[in-house]
Amino acid sequence: MANIVLGNKEFFKGIGQIKYEGPQSDNPLAYRWYDEHRVIAGKTMKEHFRFAVAYWHSFCGNGGDPFGGPTHIFPWDEKSDAVERAKDKMDAAFEFFTKIGFPYYCFHDVDVVDYSNDVADNEKRLQALTEYAKQKQAASGVKLLWGTANLFSHRRYMNGAATNPDFAVLAHAGAQVKAALDATIALGGENYVFWGGREGYMTLLNTNMKREQEHLARFLHMAKDYARSQGFKGTFFIEPKPCEPTKHQYDYDAATVISFLRQYDLLGDFKLNLEVNHATLAGHTFQHELQVAVDAGLLGSMDANRGDYQNGWDTDQFPTNLNEITEAMLIILEGGGFQGGGINFDAKIRRNSTDPADLFYAHIGGADTFARSLIAADNILQHSDYKKLRADRYASYNSGKGQEFEAGKLSLQDLRNIAAASGEPAVTSGRQEYIENLINRFI
Amino acid sequence: MANIVLGNKEFFKGIGQIKYEGPQSDNPLAYRWYDEHRVIAGKTMKEHFRFAVAYWHSFCGNGGDPFGGPTHIFPWDEKSDAVERAKDKMDAAFEFFTKIGFPYYCFHDVDVVDYSNDVADNEKRLQALTEYAKQKQAASGVKLLWGTANLFSHRRYMNGAATNPDFAVLAHAGAQVKAALDATIALGGENYVFWGGREGYMTLLNTNMKREQEHLARFLHMAKDYARSQGFKGTFFIEPKPCEPTKHQYDYDAATVISFLRQYDLLGDFKLNLEVNHATLAGHTFQHELQVAVDAGLLGSMDANRGDYQNGWDTDQFPTNLNEITEAMLIILEGGGFQGGGINFDAKIRRNSTDPADLFYAHIGGADTFARSLIAADNILQHSDYKKLRADRYASYNSGKGQEFEAGKLSLQDLRNIAAASGEPAVTSGRQEYIENLINRFI
Amino acid sequence: MANIVLGNKEFFKGIGQIKYEGPQSDNPLAYRWYDEHRVIAGKTMKEHFRFAVAYWHSFCGNGGDPFGGPTHIFPWDEKSDAVERAKDKMDAAFEFFTKIGFPYYCFHDVDVVDYSNDVADNEKRLQALTEYAKQKQAASGVKLLWGTANLFSHRRYMNGAATNPDFAVLAHAGAQVKAALDATIALGGENYVFWGGREGYMTLLNTNMKREQEHLARFLHMAKDYARSQGFKGTFFIEPKPCEPTKHQYDYDAATVISFLRQYDLLGDFKLNLEVNHATLAGHTFQHELQVAVDAGLLGSMDANRGDYQNGWDTDQFPTNLNEITEAMLIILEGGGFQGGGINFDAKIRRNSTDPADLFYAHIGGADTFARSLIAADNILQHSDYKKLRADRYASYNSGKGQEFEAGKLSLQDLRNIAAASGEPAVTSGRQEYIENLINRFI
Amino acid sequence: MANIVLGNKEFFKGIGQIKYEGPQSDNPLAYRWYDEHRVIAGKTMKEHFRFAVAYWHSFCGNGGDPFGGPTHIFPWDEKSDAVERAKDKMDAAFEFFTKIGFPYYCFHDVDVVDYSNDVADNEKRLQALTEYAKQKQAASGVKLLWGTANLFSHRRYMNGAATNPDFAVLAHAGAQVKAALDATIALGGENYVFWGGREGYMTLLNTNMKREQEHLARFLHMAKDYARSQGFKGTFFIEPKPCEPTKHQYDYDAATVISFLRQYDLLGDFKLNLEVNHATLAGHTFQHELQVAVDAGLLGSMDANRGDYQNGWDTDQFPTNLNEITEAMLIILEGGGFQGGGINFDAKIRRNSTDPADLFYAHIGGADTFARSLIAADNILQHSDYKKLRADRYASYNSGKGQEFEAGKLSLQDLRNIAAASGEPAVTSGRQEYIENLINRFI
Repeated sequence: MANIVLGNKEFFKGIGQIKYEGPQSDNPLAYRWYDEHRVIAGKTMKEHFRFAVAYWHSFCGNGGDPFGGPTHIFPWDEKSDAVERAKDKMDAAFEFFTKIGFPYYCFHDVDVVDYSNDVADNEKRLQALTEYAKQKQAASGVKLLWGTANLFSHRRYMNGAATNPDFAVLAHAGAQVKAALDATIALGGENYVFWGGREGYMTLLNTNMKREQEHLARFLHMAKDYARSQGFKGTFFIEPKPCEPTKHQYDYDAATVISFLRQYDLLGDFKLNLEVNHATLAGHTFQHELQVAVDAGLLGSMDANRGDYQNGWDTDQFPTNLNEITEAMLIILEGGGFQGGGINFDAKIRRNSTDPADLFYAHIGGADTFARSLIAADNILQHSDYKKLRADRYASYNSGKGQEFEAGKLSLQDLRNIAAASGEPAVTSGRQEYIENLINRFI
Repeated sequence: MANIVLGNKEFFKGIGQIKYEGPQSDNPLAYRWYDEHRVIAGKTMKEHFRFAVAYWHSFCGNGGDPFGGPTHIFPWDEKSDAVERAKDKMDAAFEFFTKIGFPYYCFHDVDVVDYSNDVADNEKRLQALTEYAKQKQAASGVKLLWGTANLFSHRRYMNGAATNPDFAVLAHAGAQVKAALDATIALGGENYVFWGGREGYMTLLNTNMKREQEHLARFLHMAKDYARSQGFKGTFFIEPKPCEPTKHQYDYDAATVISFLRQYDLLGDFKLNLEVNHATLAGHTFQHELQVAVDAGLLGSMDANRGDYQNGWDTDQFPTNLNEITEAMLIILEGGGFQGGGINFDAKIRRNSTDPADLFYAHIGGADTFARSLIAADNILQHSDYKKLRADRYASYNSGKGQEFEAGKLSLQDLRNIAAASGEPAVTSGRQEYIENLINRFI
Repeated sequence: MANIVLGNKEFFKGIGQIKYEGPQSDNPLAYRWYDEHRVIAGKTMKEHFRFAVAYWHSFCGNGGDPFGGPTHIFPWDEKSDAVERAKDKMDAAFEFFTKIGFPYYCFHDVDVVDYSNDVADNEKRLQALTEYAKQKQAASGVKLLWGTANLFSHRRYMNGAATNPDFAVLAHAGAQVKAALDATIALGGENYVFWGGREGYMTLLNTNMKREQEHLARFLHMAKDYARSQGFKGTFFIEPKPCEPTKHQYDYDAATVISFLRQYDLLGDFKLNLEVNHATLAGHTFQHELQVAVDAGLLGSMDANRGDYQNGWDTDQFPTNLNEITEAMLIILEGGGFQGGGINFDAKIRRNSTDPADLFYAHIGGADTFARSLIAADNILQHSDYKKLRADRYASYNSGKGQEFEAGKLSLQDLRNIAAASGEPAVTSGRQEYIENLINRFI
Repeated sequence: MANIVLGNKEFFKGIGQIKYEGPQSDNPLAYRWYDEHRVIAGKTMKEHFRFAVAYWHSFCGNGGDPFGGPTHIFPWDEKSDAVERAKDKMDAAFEFFTKIGFPYYCFHDVDVVDYSNDVADNEKRLQALTEYAKQKQAASGVKLLWGTANLFSHRRYMNGAATNPDFAVLAHAGAQVKAALDATIALGGENYVFWGGREGYMTLLNTNMKREQEHLARFLHMAKDYARSQGFKGTFFIEPKPCEPTKHQYDYDAATVISFLRQYDLLGDFKLNLEVNHATLAGHTFQHELQVAVDAGLLGSMDANRGDYQNGWDTDQFPTNLNEITEAMLIILEGGGFQGGGINFDAKIRRNSTDPADLFYAHIGGADTFARSLIAADNILQHSDYKKLRADRYASYNSGKGQEFEAGKLSLQDLRNIAAASGEPAVTSGRQEYIENLINRFI
């Protein structure tokens, strides 16, 4: 790894030795999950995870919430010129990436540099920072997992971006996506994400939902066509979320997004970026969303965090739940891993976590959780009867009449005759408690 | 209407005059919503509603819950012979239908007559009651809105019915559906419903979700093929529900079901039967589910009830929320009404509502709510600027560049150039509070 | 009413005639609920309601949310000097109060004027605006329903105010409350409110809950003692909320607050200010919270709004739900009304409601809902068997053994003997559906 | 341990070696948590836990739910005579207690023997089984942790038991409690529990909440007085639950119950029995409820289970969540443990867990979770800076002005002067992520 302070100023200092699971690194701030080079299912742990730092939470998120102002005062936010201020922020970001040792980052356009209301000026700002990031990436080896455009914070998007009733706003969304795609491509970004925080409705009473969704589909096709024309080979991700900030978001959950992609002929280029807290807000376990995506061949990437099970909004806490993440890793491992993506920590330190060390501990707690969970999941798959227990439950469909059923060779009348002839079936336990204990024995 | 006591015994008596909204009927128990012959959007109110009584809640539901036994002791449940007991129950049911004056009813197979574990015996039982019901229908003019098979209460379905890991159980589900289809067809049932209370999982840890969903699709095709071969011309409905009794049900919500129908080539024969309380359990307003179904051309029928906004299970209370149902009727009216179905009161009186009159008041409260809401919704559509307000929001797509966008004639680069040339768009209020007030002025 | 434009500039203009329920006012912007002089239960409707405008939402709330910046750009927010800017804001506020015709307003200290980090300077700022408000009140007749100090927005309160682990922060909270009390007293404020948005915990893992609650009790005693020493005769209100922004707030719900007041000897001076959306976030109906407060003799005031039943945060929408508010008015009427307080619209227009008229429509929709609901509730109490139905249910305690039980004259052995002697009791219907229909017939 | 088959028949057989965490026992079915004799905080692990089996879920719960009938068919439920059938059930129960090796059990009256509607007959039945249980307890050494009366399942309690509007029903509740107290005392039961599943309301519209709560308080005093007169020295527990089966239950959560106990002068004899799933249904973490009870000196006992974080009803699953239980054990250990009670597995195997082994695995999974969690919590308290981190946060109150504040020596004016003199306080991180990581490092 190149020198970890890449700019003129060291922003993260005086933090001391970070404590974490497993053997400690020589470098007091560099986190190494148990053994990043350990091979599991044909890939190193590092290759499984592809951990990424989220630019927005870590370097822009100021601790403000609906009831209070900023608590995180960043030393990189002091300069008055937008581009110079953005460079300081990027210095801090790459300092953090390299100190902690994560290989990837992700950004929205407006994370990287503040935007004005002038399209051409914003393009220039983003290009300037794209050039700066190129140098940082080259110097550090850190890569861009995905880029995106923020189409939800600006006032103009208050009624939606690609689903805005006003075409003039949709055009601005197009301009922003074009510039963000250009930046992503220039930086070798491996994927591009759409999260539609305002693509939905505040009330159905003023909304033509069908027309808005058709606009969204059209917009996605246009973005994809442009990116492909510019040589982009990566995957597009849709990130489902049921609500917040909007009353209802069209990309509600994995099943809804898959339905939309299929209906509008977008399955070839788009996959899913799943977020833990978004799953729970939609009334699902994260594991459920993963399984839906895996079954459709569409698991692209994930945003790692956790929600608060008592509160009903996106708390975006760093992941620490061992049971939840171990069960998630089982599905990810059995599903063949992420298609193009990785694990982006879309999580934020609490409003009252104001020490520089807090940002390190937060990321390390998340990485620890994934490291332990991957090892546990691998052990479960390799050294227990977990897979066999599930497979055995479906054995009746592997031969005989069950096989004929799967092959489409039986009619409803056949089913009736089979049932009448064979009498009441025996009862078979689902063995849920046994399997739950099994999981815990490996955590 | 024929004599309202069609059997040997009068089960509902001594109730007196029922009180309700609007002009009272001469017949003390016969409910007439405001004016059932009033014409709204080309149909009488009676044609709009097609109110149905749910056999299960009204004549089988005994008031038991997870913490207590039966509280409703039915005089029609006394005979020891299953078929004779079932005839008493049917006498009571048609007495209620005709006394209150609702034109339709709906049933599961096991509502009509208790089942044993013997396939052939159950077929005979159901046939006996089908013959009995035919006579009742002819005598009263009451019709069957839809039939269905209960594939969730019996012990054998504890791991699912069409999604059971054991093919022997799936075969029994097939036998039950065949007999229920035969009965529905024999009775001139206008539709057939699938609600998969156990089609889902208790834990993903023991579940092959993809294989189970493929089995479900195969099973639905077989049922449809059989029914069509028997001359059934009606519509099949899927009724979404997110969970309860199962941890997760595959027919989670309207969007999920539509996705499933499209993926497995079932869109031609299946539509949706939406239930208010299922919508809210899935985190949606009922209006949302209706709009999703209308936009897909798949609004088949509805189960009328309401949930408790504080409690997280299916309380199936009778509908009384004027705001909720008025907004629902707006979508139903604008969407052209139900395709094949009607309004089935899938609702139950409270455990401690033990007077015979309570069943009348419950249905009447529901019908009152729909009657007021339909009139309010019609007035809003006819006599306010509600529709215009919404349409005007999208005016920018009706001509010029917006129209070109909809027609697929613009590229992302075009959008960018339009945005750069036109500058920051004006902000347009969504006027939510104005429209919410407008709705209330018509309730 | 004095001239409705009290400052140098007219901020709300060009709005035209506002539409609302009931007979329209001559003054196009002045709202009059049906008949504010109508007498119900010995008070005029105006006396029942005592409607108040919330300074924060209406004149400070900029439409920002966790995912986006301001959308409401206020013309009164332009001057650079804090006191001059605050005067413009107060001009706008009183213009709105008088145009719409509401008799009261409520504020936090920092709503009225922006604060710095200097205690003495802030005191001067608030005193300057207090003088200005005195003149406005005198000129318009508008009065202060209650004042409060914002102890949750500033960074220093991120770990709590009166419950902060750092005494230095608690001292600042004390300074702010002292100044806010001084202002409230100077302006003839009728009550003073404590809402502890940060008085709770983000995680129990770092929290000494007992010690923090003892500090809170001590702090409230000190505030009360100071105010009384300054001649304040009004009531102190605690406003319960379960969470948001904090993971858990100590003033969770009405029962929790009453318990706290009783434990720490604060019942004599403090009552409750209940908010609709806070009730639903706590898992209660608003009606429940009202009943708890009424039963304890502690219903002080209310914050009128509504939540979104699908989303889990404080949406603070203006109240429009007729069923909910009618049931609330039943409890308020039967409970003898508010003790000291009134109905403060602690509600905000949606982020995308950006027309000046939206603020009028929002308040009018709320007032309409209360006006219809008060009339409906009064009719229910005067002209139906609602009260009798409930009273009759408890008749067995009005005489005989039931009366002896209430008087404490029976032992458990007595109960046993009575039960053994009298045999199985008859079952009595709760008649819930009948009563729910009754309510709707009066809406 | 005495012979594990204490009756005429072996009900649990052919199960084989049970798998669990830590060193395996010689006895294939006897579970030993890591090392039950290990001393932690002055008590053995066995003394900390006092694990109890819940009679109702394990020997009466038949797998039925609101959508389906029984799935668990018990061989001890076959005899027609109620008392003989009850003895078989008790044989099975003690066989299970002794095979798995748990030292306690808990019961409701109607778990032990089916009740008729005849008070005197029920007393005889319960006495007969009490005699039988005495012998079983003597032979096995198993003890009764607590007894209770089921005042929620019978039809007569559909409107409440001690809060029923009909005094005749309240008298029956009294008769049942008297008999259950007699049985508990006769069996040396260490505590007695009240869980008021129907003590609340289905709708406020027909409810006099205040009068009902006064009846409840009176009833509890009568029960306590009777038990004390019979020599009962144990503790009475109230078990909070917010709802289900009732819309709202008066014993909503720990804070509400404590308020009630204080208001009605019951604090001296009553403590809390807290249940995990009840806490989460009330919108709290279990840890929160524990802390509230500990802070009031009222932590009596706990019902161990877990809820489903996506579903909104009482799933009563066996506890397996390591993070949740470790944090709970921290509070229990620091709070000095349970006062009188222990850990009762108020949990049920899933409807589709139909193997005899499932009941063993379920209890063992729960015990494993507690064993690991107790050890982790002890290590955190002994070997980390967890306690110091929390204590240090409050250091400013241990001396100087902070100490004076706690001692009641400061006025609000003093606070203001301190704040003005000392200027803006430094910001102190809450270090939440650091502490969360710390917890995980010890799991």
